[in-house]
Amino acid sequence: MKPINVGLLGIGTVGGGTFTVLTRNEAEITRRAGRPIRISKVADKNLALAKEVTAGRAEVTDDAFAVVDDPAIDIVVELIGGYGIAKELVLRAIANGKHVVTANKALLAVHGNEIFAAAQARGVIVAFEAAVAGGIPIIKALREGLSANRIEWIAGIINGTTNFILSEMRDKGLSFATVLAEAQRLGYAEADPTFDVEGVDAAHKLTIMSAIAFGIPMHFEQAHVEGISRLAAEDIRYAEQLGYRIKLLGITRRTPEGVELRVHPTLIPEKRLIANVEGAMNAVLVKGDAVGPTLYYGKGAGAEPTASAVIADLVDVTRMHTADPEHRVPHLAFQPQSLVDLPILPLAEISTSYYLRLRVEDKPGVLADITRILADQGISIDAMIQREPDEGEEQTDIIILTHQTRERQIDAAITLIQSLPAVKAPLIRLRLENLL
Amino acid sequence: MKPINVGLLGIGTVGGGTFTVLTRNEAEITRRAGRPIRISKVADKNLALAKEVTAGRAEVTDDAFAVVDDPAIDIVVELIGGYGIAKELVLRAIANGKHVVTANKALLAVHGNEIFAAAQARGVIVAFEAAVAGGIPIIKALREGLSANRIEWIAGIINGTTNFILSEMRDKGLSFATVLAEAQRLGYAEADPTFDVEGVDAAHKLTIMSAIAFGIPMHFEQAHVEGISRLAAEDIRYAEQLGYRIKLLGITRRTPEGVELRVHPTLIPEKRLIANVEGAMNAVLVKGDAVGPTLYYGKGAGAEPTASAVIADLVDVTRMHTADPEHRVPHLAFQPQSLVDLPILPLAEISTSYYLRLRVEDKPGVLADITRILADQGISIDAMIQREPDEGEEQTDIIILTHQTRERQIDAAITLIQSLPAVKAPLIRLRLENLL
Repeated sequence: MKPINVGLLGIGTVGGGTFTVLTRNEAEITRRAGRPIRISKVADKNLALAKEVTAGRAEVTDDAFAVVDDPAIDIVVELIGGYGIAKELVLRAIANGKHVVTANKALLAVHGNEIFAAAQARGVIVAFEAAVAGGIPIIKALREGLSANRIEWIAGIINGTTNFILSEMRDKGLSFATVLAEAQRLGYAEADPTFDVEGVDAAHKLTIMSAIAFGIPMHFEQAHVEGISRLAAEDIRYAEQLGYRIKLLGITRRTPEGVELRVHPTLIPEKRLIANVEGAMNAVLVKGDAVGPTLYYGKGAGAEPTASAVIADLVDVTRMHTADPEHRVPHLAFQPQSLVDLPILPLAEISTSYYLRLRVEDKPGVLADITRILADQGISIDAMIQREPDEGEEQTDIIILTHQTRERQIDAAITLIQSLPAVKAPLIRLRLENLL
Repeated sequence: MKPINVGLLGIGTVGGGTFTVLTRNEAEITRRAGRPIRISKVADKNLALAKEVTAGRAEVTDDAFAVVDDPAIDIVVELIGGYGIAKELVLRAIANGKHVVTANKALLAVHGNEIFAAAQARGVIVAFEAAVAGGIPIIKALREGLSANRIEWIAGIINGTTNFILSEMRDKGLSFATVLAEAQRLGYAEADPTFDVEGVDAAHKLTIMSAIAFGIPMHFEQAHVEGISRLAAEDIRYAEQLGYRIKLLGITRRTPEGVELRVHPTLIPEKRLIANVEGAMNAVLVKGDAVGPTLYYGKGAGAEPTASAVIADLVDVTRMHTADPEHRVPHLAFQPQSLVDLPILPLAEISTSYYLRLRVEDKPGVLADITRILADQGISIDAMIQREPDEGEEQTDIIILTHQTRERQIDAAITLIQSLPAVKAPLIRLRLENLL
């Protein structure tokens, strides 16, 4: 049977993995797809690398536009990354009537609305399973597997680098800086780790999941994005004493007032399965009204896991591309004319529980003042520990876990607590989710 | 837009849930599917119940054949269960050119080859997400999400009743019989629990997953099926001392000699995520060559979780049914002409690790005799504990964990060990999987 011709843009880690897996599992994949899927043309600035990886089995070029303009190419796989040339190439491929498979979460989170509108107008498919959580088929689960459900919320560990760092900090009691340096040495973190450790990468992925879960446009610019670089080892330890683990979670939740869209370090009860996802692994917890909680776990990055998702999309497109567009799975899970735009809630309006750590003078009345402020703001306390001061020490730590409240109320309480003379250092505030 | 008309056979727990969820989430589901999905006709022997649940929103009848023969019905949902009338109705629906959605694992595991061949010949879809692991979209993950992979093995907790019983036995140190009675009182176990506790239900689901993972026909009749009714509380306790949990796993693995297909109580290292799946929850661990291990977790039974899967299939069929059959997702993941038949390995030929518990006289030389027998069979020991005999007791327990070996070798060793005069009670043998 006539092969489907794929043009590959970028033969780096994921591109190389895609080539390798497609070649190794050719027989198996053809048995599934019904026809061979062949990478016939590869573009990479590094021509020598492209030649080495493809070993004569594909045409190579350093001109990516020669691939997207090639009439023989049916599907373009974009693995260049970033918003610049990648955007131009994807839009050009769409304009040329080609289907696109991409792993580029940054591009979709920031320019997805424009790209999906173009694809819709041209009647082509833009598939992006590889953009979120690597090899875990979470896009398919949200878009097809849970299509009966009103999805209530999603909470995901969707950045392997930060989960690796947090696991090491907890296991070994080390500081963020020490573990980051080690992660960079091992190749788990990039030389410039900002996108990962400051939560930007997770926010890109969360934005995409939020859109397909709720049938809304991408709203990356309104996401609250907070990373782990200021997280102290002692908070991980205190959390553990209270029965919690700290994970960098991407959380999106539908509320009557709007959609929460936030990435931040989060305390989770240690009994939850997702609290036990360690190292560079990813996991996404999805709560649907009919199905209840479901969890999807696997490798969120790496050459072959990401290639697994790229190729699953290639098989899907191979199967679907002859269907008329209105019978395909819609890009954003909901039919394009059925997308609605729900407001994204400002951070002050979200509801969650909180972990507060205060450095206070060890003298009578301090705790009474603090708890009075919380009570006045309508915030109730779920648990508290006060560390016994060391011999001769005149200050100590108080840790408070609150029940659920509005962020704006905790903000107000923190301002008041911070102004108490007995409170000595800036108060540490983390969010806590029970995930039930 | 013209609704798609669904005929529902059986309005019990799952049927009622399907009706409820389709009604409650009608707007959301229509936004996804592109057209309304309407249950227009319901058949149940209990006409009064059918009338009560549908409340005038669907035609009701006590004649299921009137539904499958109704030219206005596009899709038949079979929720009757069992092999008898359900089989006849499904085949008749197919012959009438209707698509079928079913939750009937017993029917598919035992008669699936015949049913899928009939569907193939008639060009209709038989969808069965709800047949395995309730609301978890595991069929979709295996068939579409992981289509790039050569799947190596699957290990699943796919029966909620037995997982609930095992969780309670471990938590409370109770016997199987005590917990079963409690589970029956709570409605977690049926009056006749045989299908669940003896592993038959899990074997049905495993058979279906094995077929779509490896592209082979259903081979339920060759599955090794072993339940939990003879599992002793003390083995759960000893396993825990050694760092393991005991779960009823369905395991299917591709080996060069054939396919392993087996359900039995299994020791799993407690650090594995799947070892921490508690209560009636289900989880399936899938190992693909490219993606590595992935895990899918959620509710495996119940009205709305199962309805979630039934409706996801309805949405899929609504989207796919206008595509020509060769462009649809193939029923068994692989194109029908690409199915192969791999041999199912007899139990004696499987490879795994073992837990052995021996009741022995507390006298010199016993351990030497036992370890000599194991060594002679080429079986190496991974860990061992010997319980200190109580005061005045003349017998004690020895627990041995072996490295991986063939079942036939452990069988031979067990026969020899059992014949030692110092070995006092029948040896207990459980299997152990590291799941890496």
